[in-house]
Amino acid sequence: MRSWHGGTGPARAEDRRVRKSAGPEEGGTVKLTAKGAATRGRIIEGAAAEMRERGVVVTTLDDVRARTGTSKSQLFHYFPGGKEELLLAVARFEADQVLADQRPELGDLTSWGAWLAWRDTVVARYRGQGQQCPLNMLMSQLGRSTPGARAVVAELLDKWQGEIAEGVRAMQRQGEIGPGVDADRSAAALLAGIQGGVVVLLSTGRTTHLEAALDLGIQQLRDSATRRG
Amino acid sequence: MRSWHGGTGPARAEDRRVRKSAGPEEGGTVKLTAKGAATRGRIIEGAAAEMRERGVVVTTLDDVRARTGTSKSQLFHYFPGGKEELLLAVARFEADQVLADQRPELGDLTSWGAWLAWRDTVVARYRGQGQQCPLNMLMSQLGRSTPGARAVVAELLDKWQGEIAEGVRAMQRQGEIGPGVDADRSAAALLAGIQGGVVVLLSTGRTTHLEAALDLGIQQLRDSATRRG
Repeated sequence: MRSWHGGTGPARAEDRRVRKSAGPEEGGTVKLTAKGAATRGRIIEGAAAEMRERGVVVTTLDDVRARTGTSKSQLFHYFPGGKEELLLAVARFEADQVLADQRPELGDLTSWGAWLAWRDTVVARYRGQGQQCPLNMLMSQLGRSTPGARAVVAELLDKWQGEIAEGVRAMQRQGEIGPGVDADRSAAALLAGIQGGVVVLLSTGRTTHLEAALDLGIQQLRDSATRRG
Repeated sequence: MRSWHGGTGPARAEDRRVRKSAGPEEGGTVKLTAKGAATRGRIIEGAAAEMRERGVVVTTLDDVRARTGTSKSQLFHYFPGGKEELLLAVARFEADQVLADQRPELGDLTSWGAWLAWRDTVVARYRGQGQQCPLNMLMSQLGRSTPGARAVVAELLDKWQGEIAEGVRAMQRQGEIGPGVDADRSAAALLAGIQGGVVVLLSTGRTTHLEAALDLGIQQLRDSATRRG
């Protein structure tokens, strides 16, 4: 499991900034010191754990302060936009977690064994999670149509699809997937199948659709190598 | 477009009953007369139109009464459970609408022309709807995890998948889809792709994923006929 403050990519850099303006959506960010970033990360991790245990709606800023041992002024120093800004940061953390839970397979789809292991990891992750999806609950609370919530989802989908597409290209280089396959389009279809499979799981408790989408999607990629041969 | 009170199947029969008990989730239903069913249907259609125009959250029972020209006592005669029961009936109406909007193609997937026309109908429907999904808003308001909301979604998914699977079987009988294809599993994967494509559309405004899922899913079915030669 990747720690919140472990990465160094662009998304991490954004996490290291804190908004100075009133609203969480406005500009005006300032770099945090390493210690400040660690404290902010600790608050986010604690808030995420609290919200997973007790629910997003009922968790208050006081609950987060108590759990993370932070003062009111500290909390407002790191999250001047209040609960909404904290929720958005927790949503970004949970979105990162979605990808982290699929590693190392997702970042290394370079053999059919890795693809099948990834498939199993995805199914096990969502089966384990069941009908309680932290990111989904956060999105409900934030309002799915707010710019902040949309940005978190869009970024997650982009990264996820990009890593699947990278896997398709890796297999194409090995001749295991046909050269005519559009990697981005295949990754988009597979990602749609996963999202829809999770939607069905959240409504019905069954992983049938998630498994069917993954299995048939991967099968289609495998078949592509032999179709023209 | 199928009228709310046009069908005769089991789902229609349930719509013709009205709960006599306090809560919308409890048993105790009574058959309505034809006139009563028509009035109840008119209230539901009016409430659905009002909620589509003004939003689910802000629409009050008084708004529904004003639009449908019904008295307070009439409204509570047909929906003794109040707004929650009405919301559930509107959700069922909107769920039926999802399928009705895909007809006649969905119920008649007996040629590749019909499959492609259906694909275009689904994409056009959701593109036209954009980021405002009435059923999704109703589910948010009802609470996705409530038994009533879950039942509406489960029934919609079952019917939808069943009709796609029926189309797969029809094409298998014509030799256009390979005999080894599991119709239910293929329909489940295709349905997952549609659901996920809509989820992505609701977050990003783009139909790319919906189209990729439908196109690759249908392509896989077409390819199955020639794979075994």
